[in-house]
Amino acid sequence: MSANTAQSASAAYDGLRALFGDRFSTAAAVREHHGRAETFFPAMLPDAVIFPHSTEEVAAAVRHCAAHAIPIVPYGVGTSLEGNFLAAQGGVCVDLSQMQRLLRVSEEDLDCTVEAGVTRKQLNEELRHTGLFFPIDPGADATLGGMAATRASGTNAVRYGTMRQNVLGLTVVLPDGRIIRTGSRARKSAAGYDLSGLFIGSEGTLGIITEVTLRLYGQPEAISSGVCEFATLRGAVDTVIQTIQMGIPVARIELVDELQIRAVNRYSKTDLAECPTLFLEFHGTPAGVAEQSTQFGEIAAAHGGGGFRWTTNTEERTALWDARHKAYYADLALKPGGTALSTDVCVPISSLCDCITETRAAVDASGIIGPIVGHVGDGNFHVVMVFDPDSADEVARAKALSERIVELALAHGGTCTGEHGIGIGKKGYLIAEHGEDAVDLMRAIKRAIDPAGIMNPGKIFDL
Amino acid sequence: MSANTAQSASAAYDGLRALFGDRFSTAAAVREHHGRAETFFPAMLPDAVIFPHSTEEVAAAVRHCAAHAIPIVPYGVGTSLEGNFLAAQGGVCVDLSQMQRLLRVSEEDLDCTVEAGVTRKQLNEELRHTGLFFPIDPGADATLGGMAATRASGTNAVRYGTMRQNVLGLTVVLPDGRIIRTGSRARKSAAGYDLSGLFIGSEGTLGIITEVTLRLYGQPEAISSGVCEFATLRGAVDTVIQTIQMGIPVARIELVDELQIRAVNRYSKTDLAECPTLFLEFHGTPAGVAEQSTQFGEIAAAHGGGGFRWTTNTEERTALWDARHKAYYADLALKPGGTALSTDVCVPISSLCDCITETRAAVDASGIIGPIVGHVGDGNFHVVMVFDPDSADEVARAKALSERIVELALAHGGTCTGEHGIGIGKKGYLIAEHGEDAVDLMRAIKRAIDPAGIMNPGKIFDL
Repeated sequence: MSANTAQSASAAYDGLRALFGDRFSTAAAVREHHGRAETFFPAMLPDAVIFPHSTEEVAAAVRHCAAHAIPIVPYGVGTSLEGNFLAAQGGVCVDLSQMQRLLRVSEEDLDCTVEAGVTRKQLNEELRHTGLFFPIDPGADATLGGMAATRASGTNAVRYGTMRQNVLGLTVVLPDGRIIRTGSRARKSAAGYDLSGLFIGSEGTLGIITEVTLRLYGQPEAISSGVCEFATLRGAVDTVIQTIQMGIPVARIELVDELQIRAVNRYSKTDLAECPTLFLEFHGTPAGVAEQSTQFGEIAAAHGGGGFRWTTNTEERTALWDARHKAYYADLALKPGGTALSTDVCVPISSLCDCITETRAAVDASGIIGPIVGHVGDGNFHVVMVFDPDSADEVARAKALSERIVELALAHGGTCTGEHGIGIGKKGYLIAEHGEDAVDLMRAIKRAIDPAGIMNPGKIFDL
Repeated sequence: MSANTAQSASAAYDGLRALFGDRFSTAAAVREHHGRAETFFPAMLPDAVIFPHSTEEVAAAVRHCAAHAIPIVPYGVGTSLEGNFLAAQGGVCVDLSQMQRLLRVSEEDLDCTVEAGVTRKQLNEELRHTGLFFPIDPGADATLGGMAATRASGTNAVRYGTMRQNVLGLTVVLPDGRIIRTGSRARKSAAGYDLSGLFIGSEGTLGIITEVTLRLYGQPEAISSGVCEFATLRGAVDTVIQTIQMGIPVARIELVDELQIRAVNRYSKTDLAECPTLFLEFHGTPAGVAEQSTQFGEIAAAHGGGGFRWTTNTEERTALWDARHKAYYADLALKPGGTALSTDVCVPISSLCDCITETRAAVDASGIIGPIVGHVGDGNFHVVMVFDPDSADEVARAKALSERIVELALAHGGTCTGEHGIGIGKKGYLIAEHGEDAVDLMRAIKRAIDPAGIMNPGKIFDL
């Protein structure tokens, strides 16, 4: 906090302390925990952290901060990857992780409402007895408020969509402390501006999401998983393209490249063929998943896919996905003491093969270790750059590589971020992708909703 | 136009005439055509109509109007139902129907970009040879720009979603004449605010949509259609609920009530059983549609559904849907000289049966003729109110009935409009549905993007 606002801020903190008691903290360890992300960015600590238990408490805190012009940073469990929750201008971190109630489930309507701090694993655990599930799986056990705020998706967006398609409504505390409810429990509505859509992906810059109403799905009657190895990257990617074009409703279709398989073999002592590999999952009736698997197998065979094997057995499925799920740790192990950062581009599927091939060449030319894994059914793929964070040279090369990968994706008509968001580091790419006028429009919306600029300042774009 | 702006307006019109030549008109017949809708509302004529041929021409016109503070009303082919295109404050109607080019199709990416004036039937005609199709079908042969602007949907949203889920990006002329492109051809993106989502459903109040990038789908390998008759409305609706809950991917599931069937029989000289009826369509592989039909048949039988018959034959399918498609004309014929207006509520599916039952009772109590048809898989249904527009009493009763139906839907957690939009007539309901604070937020966004208030004034909310 700057010196000239210290007195005002101090008054605000006294007020927050009075409101939150021992759920208000300025302890160094707590501030550290909320101000560090595994990114290129240095730590940016909040001046205080509060742990509200209700929308009304969040609103009271926001009114307090608004009155004292104190920046506010919403925080879930800190799994976002673009510095989205770093306190760029200090202020108060609103940690929503103690708002953990599943408020209602409607088995008839296939929907539920959760407080923002409920994590996706907690939700699915609580839903287990209902026969329903929430499909979005970004890997980390993120909070659903955070997932909405960053427009998260993950492995099975190819079938179920992203948070954009799966949020029916939100409760939001606006920057002046007013509470609104957006959307409706109706499955569709043409009533006014799509405020839910505006807050989904706004990364906390327009308000604090405190409750989320979500679509749910019946647990599939049958799930089959498969693994298929390819002689070439092109064969694997062309198989994906044709699978999508044929309309086969794959639930997951993940590309894991040769280098990634090698990393997994080394880390997990497995003996997978070290070649481009697709991991798949099919959801449906027993007859449906068998038909999907067969159709997929025919496409794969026509593109040099070998050794396709699939199973509906739960334990075998779990074992099979292990390689995919351990990718991050396997990558970290490629370079002891290294850090692993993920790029996140997404391109039209017709460009996927060219873009991945060009990206692979750029990674190899950079000298940075970079396995590729991807939610390729959406055209989304990640290069997990593994490098020494203490080496200025490696950091510089990783940054340059990251930029180059985004340039390639934009040249292919893609986006700089399929699912991680803009945060701090991609603000320049946002302009490159959408143009100054479109980003200006975003700024105009921001100023209209948060004229004082207190909500998660410094994110998405500069004002 | 008011007298005190007449001189300024006249100068603007001279400028527009210079820009558009014979594509600028102030002819009474042209103004009439663009200022009348089949609604409760009186005619509201624009002062002039222009017919641009490109985004750049639209931008030039908008810059001109902005400089002269002349209201601008975008217009497609005038099929919207809530007075959305009425020139409430006069001004210039921008008729986009001559922007009819299919700009690109990507068979590999399953997407295309069209100019705003392309209609959905034109698009599907032009796509025929590609094996792809665009599914959204609001009934009328609306323009895709208009469908985006009103967040349209229709019979097969239950499977394919609404315009919200099927627009990948937009070209928009902002109220100051700047041109922006929103979204991306990537299937998903977390890059900044969802501007596409903001313009979809904004009813021309934030800018003019001039190009739309759309998701396309492979034409289903097999289509089967079915009709199923029920002894009771509850049996039909419970069948819908269970079909959705089971996750059967119906492409269409339409309820047509007893009165509607009677109207069709009278109009089309058919001999359908006069009882609550479901019309269905299944899309998939031959094995898939057979499985879906069988599963549905079992659910229907358990709820008193009888005489379920389904066919994959194209001619039989067409004949079967005829009754549903002719509903509006059949309804009009119920009252010679009458007009037919449609309500548009949408409720959570668990409330569908109660809400339809209460609505049926309200219609009967009103004395207004009102068959019910509905996209019930989404919880969306229409009462087609047929009444004498020249009878003040009938008009008053129809208005009161319309209000009552919305009240019932809102009490069930629903929305006042599933797919028609707010337009002029539902502004009060918007506040009832979302609350003053949420509507205030919409107003703040409107003021930020269109500070002069020239874009389609008087729609969605009052400023």
